[in-house]
Amino acid sequence: MVRPSSLSGFPEWLPDGRVVEQHVLDALRRTFELHGFAGIETRAVEPLAQLLRKGETSKEVYLLRRLQEEGEQDTADADKQLGLHFDLTVPFARWVLENAGQLAFPFKRYQIQKVWRGERPQDGRFREFTQADIDVVGADTLPFHYEVELPLVMAEALAALPIPPVRISVNNRKVAQGFYEAIGLEDVEGALRVIDKLDKIGPEGVARGLIDEAGATPDQAAQALELASISGTDASVADQVLALGARSELLDTGLQELVTLLEAARELSPGTVVADLKIARGLDYYTGSVYETTLVGHENLGSICSGGRYDSLASDGKRTFPGVGLSIGVSRLLARVLSDGLAEPTRAVPTAVLVAVTDEEHRRTSDRVAKALRARGIPADVAPTAAKFGKQIRYADRRSIPFVWFPGEDGDEVKDIRSGDQAPADAGSWEPPAEDRWPRVVDSQGAGVR
Amino acid sequence: MVRPSSLSGFPEWLPDGRVVEQHVLDALRRTFELHGFAGIETRAVEPLAQLLRKGETSKEVYLLRRLQEEGEQDTADADKQLGLHFDLTVPFARWVLENAGQLAFPFKRYQIQKVWRGERPQDGRFREFTQADIDVVGADTLPFHYEVELPLVMAEALAALPIPPVRISVNNRKVAQGFYEAIGLEDVEGALRVIDKLDKIGPEGVARGLIDEAGATPDQAAQALELASISGTDASVADQVLALGARSELLDTGLQELVTLLEAARELSPGTVVADLKIARGLDYYTGSVYETTLVGHENLGSICSGGRYDSLASDGKRTFPGVGLSIGVSRLLARVLSDGLAEPTRAVPTAVLVAVTDEEHRRTSDRVAKALRARGIPADVAPTAAKFGKQIRYADRRSIPFVWFPGEDGDEVKDIRSGDQAPADAGSWEPPAEDRWPRVVDSQGAGVR
Repeated sequence: MVRPSSLSGFPEWLPDGRVVEQHVLDALRRTFELHGFAGIETRAVEPLAQLLRKGETSKEVYLLRRLQEEGEQDTADADKQLGLHFDLTVPFARWVLENAGQLAFPFKRYQIQKVWRGERPQDGRFREFTQADIDVVGADTLPFHYEVELPLVMAEALAALPIPPVRISVNNRKVAQGFYEAIGLEDVEGALRVIDKLDKIGPEGVARGLIDEAGATPDQAAQALELASISGTDASVADQVLALGARSELLDTGLQELVTLLEAARELSPGTVVADLKIARGLDYYTGSVYETTLVGHENLGSICSGGRYDSLASDGKRTFPGVGLSIGVSRLLARVLSDGLAEPTRAVPTAVLVAVTDEEHRRTSDRVAKALRARGIPADVAPTAAKFGKQIRYADRRSIPFVWFPGEDGDEVKDIRSGDQAPADAGSWEPPAEDRWPRVVDSQGAGVR
Repeated sequence: MVRPSSLSGFPEWLPDGRVVEQHVLDALRRTFELHGFAGIETRAVEPLAQLLRKGETSKEVYLLRRLQEEGEQDTADADKQLGLHFDLTVPFARWVLENAGQLAFPFKRYQIQKVWRGERPQDGRFREFTQADIDVVGADTLPFHYEVELPLVMAEALAALPIPPVRISVNNRKVAQGFYEAIGLEDVEGALRVIDKLDKIGPEGVARGLIDEAGATPDQAAQALELASISGTDASVADQVLALGARSELLDTGLQELVTLLEAARELSPGTVVADLKIARGLDYYTGSVYETTLVGHENLGSICSGGRYDSLASDGKRTFPGVGLSIGVSRLLARVLSDGLAEPTRAVPTAVLVAVTDEEHRRTSDRVAKALRARGIPADVAPTAAKFGKQIRYADRRSIPFVWFPGEDGDEVKDIRSGDQAPADAGSWEPPAEDRWPRVVDSQGAGVR
């Protein structure tokens, strides 16, 4: 007898948690579609060679092998060996190249799928989780304004979820690189790697690291630290940077982009976006704006939505496809929502009405009532047995089904089992209150969140 | 440079195909929820021991291995070795056992997920595909009426899809077993295996097989063949069986169940369900009703939706969980819909309105229009560049976006680019025709299918 057991790192929800997850996924999809993003899905597997293009992530890949291959030579032939995708960016890049001839650019897509990472589960890391990505990709060129648009789409998407407010922190590769070059700090990537540790090792550790690892002079290290300390929500950020005295064309471009983003955000999503020049994560592969998102009051969760601008998502040798994209870690976010009780469903089943069965000979009568209700979009179920009505009501109550319907020879009646109110009703015209028709997701105070 | 290429057996759709797929998945979900089925998802992986419980399917399993395990001892330790699920029944059985204490029975669930089978792709078989399952599972008992209800839910779900009508063929294990036992044919499973080949090897081949492989006398073989030739849509099916002269308690029960199912179907889903007593596939593990579904005019596709009654979906040693379930092979069905052009979307992007940009300095004006439209649930996008209006209109046209919006200092105008009609409009109140708001799926004649 195989004993079932949960597998660490592979989360599953009970039906009530799934109602919340489905609500989250529906809300994300709706926002993305309102903004004109087309939904796509890619296969779960990619050739290993495709997955290893970035090299460093190789340790996270799950490889696949057919059971009957057992014993066959299984050295990884990267051309044929398949692995599960560990994000949605690598498959999307491959998909764009494969289908470029049939797409109209700029192409905006959203993609909500499971991804897998073969890491040892720890610190709440999942081995299987859902990501929700949006990207816009151009053919050879892609205007800067998408670097403003995409984080604001995500701000709107996240605002529609049953979660606390978010803060989107932004930086721009051009600002950091332009500044470092202006002060003569040549190892830009090295400097960014050290700056990324600021929260962990503090300013003195970073200064030492910049000198030891990135070849900075003590003065350059001090200036880089001053840059990293700057934050703000408007054009004053640029003034603070310029006050440090360094100038370069790249720095000017970067500051202009950063301020444009901040000003648009102040109008279209006030209070959400803040420039934070110590953000370095991702600056080594993004080429313009970068984004990180924290949940206010849950900063220990880390970034729940990250991304940035890349000048080459993919290239087929003739054309290059630049893009801007962000990705929400849905499962980790949802795990926090459920574990902290930030939101819950009004019920775990879709059913709004349980139709009682008087006796088994008359089950068809109850079936007809349910059919009439469903035909008008009211989720209905029929009692499993013609037990005493008290037992049938308890069946509904245990599932938080709000209404029980009693077919009768002299006319039907429907009972709101919460209030006990019972009244005559006709299956061809009766309507439940709008808030009872489908399960809703409510916050911990019981207020509707959507 | 890694050349992208499609992988045989791993289907992917372009955005227009995905609109049709999403429409299908939405329609299935809606029907299942109207009938009170709760949606769940299970992890993609199961321990190999769980996947191999049925033994015979072992050849289809994809095993997982982390890349950094490479070179480690990799004989399959069935306790730790993980494989991708090849259906949704095995994971559901495990999930029910694992969560039985927190579920209310009978428990009705639907589950729409990808599954994987490591077969060599051939005859249009997929290695990755989507299944849509419904099951009801009881604790220790489950009333017969669910064997009537579940195929009718599927009939309703399939009727809501952009596909031709379906025929659900049904049989009942009790009829076959009861009949065979009544005529003294003892090797019931053996006989069912032979009968299953009727379409392939014909009646003479089956008669020989029943004698050679199932130990039947020539007379028993002839009677079994007569049983298998019976079909019909009402109680006459039982009369035909009884006219063969054999009687047993099990046979009577089976015929009563079969007729009950047919009569309910004639009322609730007329013209859909037919009894076909030569159906043997699945009778070796189902214990009551079995179902197969063909698409009228596309019988060569095989069964698109199958299932049946099982007395033990799972057991924890104390409780046994009987169930009734059916599963739709969504990807195979969808591949046929797309390849035969049975349905297509009115457009491949969600966008109903493209807001033109007069010049880049006024992009924010266009952003505000789009925001106002989206706030009222109208999918809107903003033109990528402030090109000449003719070029912006072509951008919309290439994506079948029906409306282009022109912001103006003296008031805005909106153009239906199909008719060329242009009229003044206000972003706070203008409404597109209902059929243009979201992409719709239409049949090959252009008529709305939903």
